[in-house]
Amino acid sequence: MHIEELVKGIKAPSYELGEKLQKRLDNLTKPRGSLGRLEEMAKLVGIIQGTLHPQIKRKVSFVVAGDHGVAEEGVSAYPQEVTRQMVLNFLRGGAGINVLARFAGSEVIVIDAGVKGEIDAESPNFRKRKIREGTDNFCKGPAMSREEAIESIETGIKVFEEEWEKGKIDLVGVGEMGIANTTSASAITSVITGETAEEVTSRGTGINDEKLKKKIAVVEKAINLNKPDPTDPIDILHKLGGFEIGVMTGIILASCYHRTPVLMDGFISTSSALLASLFSPHVKEYLIASHLSVEKGHKFQLEYLGKKPLLQLDLRLGEGTGAVLGMMIVEAGIRILEEMASFDSAGVSREKG
Amino acid sequence: MHIEELVKGIKAPSYELGEKLQKRLDNLTKPRGSLGRLEEMAKLVGIIQGTLHPQIKRKVSFVVAGDHGVAEEGVSAYPQEVTRQMVLNFLRGGAGINVLARFAGSEVIVIDAGVKGEIDAESPNFRKRKIREGTDNFCKGPAMSREEAIESIETGIKVFEEEWEKGKIDLVGVGEMGIANTTSASAITSVITGETAEEVTSRGTGINDEKLKKKIAVVEKAINLNKPDPTDPIDILHKLGGFEIGVMTGIILASCYHRTPVLMDGFISTSSALLASLFSPHVKEYLIASHLSVEKGHKFQLEYLGKKPLLQLDLRLGEGTGAVLGMMIVEAGIRILEEMASFDSAGVSREKG
Repeated sequence: MHIEELVKGIKAPSYELGEKLQKRLDNLTKPRGSLGRLEEMAKLVGIIQGTLHPQIKRKVSFVVAGDHGVAEEGVSAYPQEVTRQMVLNFLRGGAGINVLARFAGSEVIVIDAGVKGEIDAESPNFRKRKIREGTDNFCKGPAMSREEAIESIETGIKVFEEEWEKGKIDLVGVGEMGIANTTSASAITSVITGETAEEVTSRGTGINDEKLKKKIAVVEKAINLNKPDPTDPIDILHKLGGFEIGVMTGIILASCYHRTPVLMDGFISTSSALLASLFSPHVKEYLIASHLSVEKGHKFQLEYLGKKPLLQLDLRLGEGTGAVLGMMIVEAGIRILEEMASFDSAGVSREKG
Repeated sequence: MHIEELVKGIKAPSYELGEKLQKRLDNLTKPRGSLGRLEEMAKLVGIIQGTLHPQIKRKVSFVVAGDHGVAEEGVSAYPQEVTRQMVLNFLRGGAGINVLARFAGSEVIVIDAGVKGEIDAESPNFRKRKIREGTDNFCKGPAMSREEAIESIETGIKVFEEEWEKGKIDLVGVGEMGIANTTSASAITSVITGETAEEVTSRGTGINDEKLKKKIAVVEKAINLNKPDPTDPIDILHKLGGFEIGVMTGIILASCYHRTPVLMDGFISTSSALLASLFSPHVKEYLIASHLSVEKGHKFQLEYLGKKPLLQLDLRLGEGTGAVLGMMIVEAGIRILEEMASFDSAGVSREKG
């Protein structure tokens, strides 16, 4: 499906179910509201899935990888080949996201959106969808062509649709891998939220003070040189990259279209959520903030989206690790709604007066 | 085992393993420290269990119920019979703790430490250990005798030991049920932390402004009348109650003795942790703060213990619900340590110089 057609199909969630869901929660054997954000999540997922009996059967974490031309500016603590090496690690099941997804019962779909170098692996959960082997250095011009920006978003839509056709997905997580992609995310975040480059740029995988200064200058330079239109998500993606950010944007849009809650992970996947939110005012209503990252720009992104994170565990790994932990909290809320006894069924007295 | 003998056996955890555990974490395919509190938990559990390869096989949530004479002062939003009704709900598997424990894979052991009324139920996970049917109203004198305070702590030790004999426990959660027990917890917290009654007393299951004022006055009166010695945990328990708080104190002490991490739940179970911490300086080292409760005195308790909560989900239910959610975060950390690939095994390049 093309972006425009899909975006037109993103409607508001079923808010009319809110009152009935609340009533169900208030009938359970606990003081009203005493399970706090678990109850909030149960209600939200019911509203998004459009049912009084939300279910979490199938969870899918999409992990999208791509390389960034701006890596040549020396903005990361790791060499570029780590992107490709980590994709192989994902496919062998040895990375953080694999471990946590196994624990949380989530499938992991790994997508090569534009990694440098051939990834010679066959795996049922691997999608070879390179747009191109790495973006261009956006300090010297646009990261990709406008056509490639559209292609990357539509790739995300297509990957989602293929999974959807295999069976309904109840909860989606988005995560990524791409050396230097916090630089791209910082630039996108500065453009969309209006915060300065300095406010939204931090240490990524762990650079020192000198490199951080350089990274902030790189973000400023990229924005001044490329002048992206802050209201046009395709223009921003075209000029600031990256391929994995575009693919995640498409996945988020497709998830909203299919009325499926999406858990954002950290700073980079939330950049994709910012881009997605520019396509339709309803996108925000399907998003769940899984955690607050150590990366300091993440706070501004969540404020812009009006989201309060479920977890704050000082994570800064990416890969969708925070999103998959957040899935467990959301699922706990659904279990409460579906499995707890009511005051009447358990014969428990209600509040006095 | 008697309290004194057990307390003598509580030693410092194996801090000497810390460096090796850190090295193992730093060899995993992720930037150093990028899994934040998950890594902290993996290291802590390794140190507590005294092994480089911590394991979480058996998780047990102890849920202890008792009634409080002070309920007659009108300090709760619910009638006193709810304690007994909720114990029956626990035994039928319909309460919040049952739902979340099933989700997290934790056993639930329900202990009647002093509920009013006979609980006519047979269940393999039910322990009938009434000290007495409800404490006395501590506005009129001590909540229980000094002998009963000792008996309640030793009951907790015994219940833990019986479970331990069935098989090693790797992670313990403590939770409770008892109408009016936040009043008891507020009084204990004020005495031990030195905060005023007003600072540590809030709405429990959801009382109105008028009842809150009354509750604060009740806490002040109880302390002024009974004058507990803030350095003597048995004296505090004797004067301020309750039986479930005493039993949880014993469970916490036994868990420390057996080098098993204990997750505190909310305000009431953390009162037990405060009492336990007065027996031995090492108790704190075995405690994990699962979440920060809405009940405002909880913050002061965690500050006193020097603990940072893992979760903040606006919970105020008790029963061990926060503790069992915290278990999932701790277990996620252990999985990371045990299951992630290392840089060498995965062929991933390390940080640049």
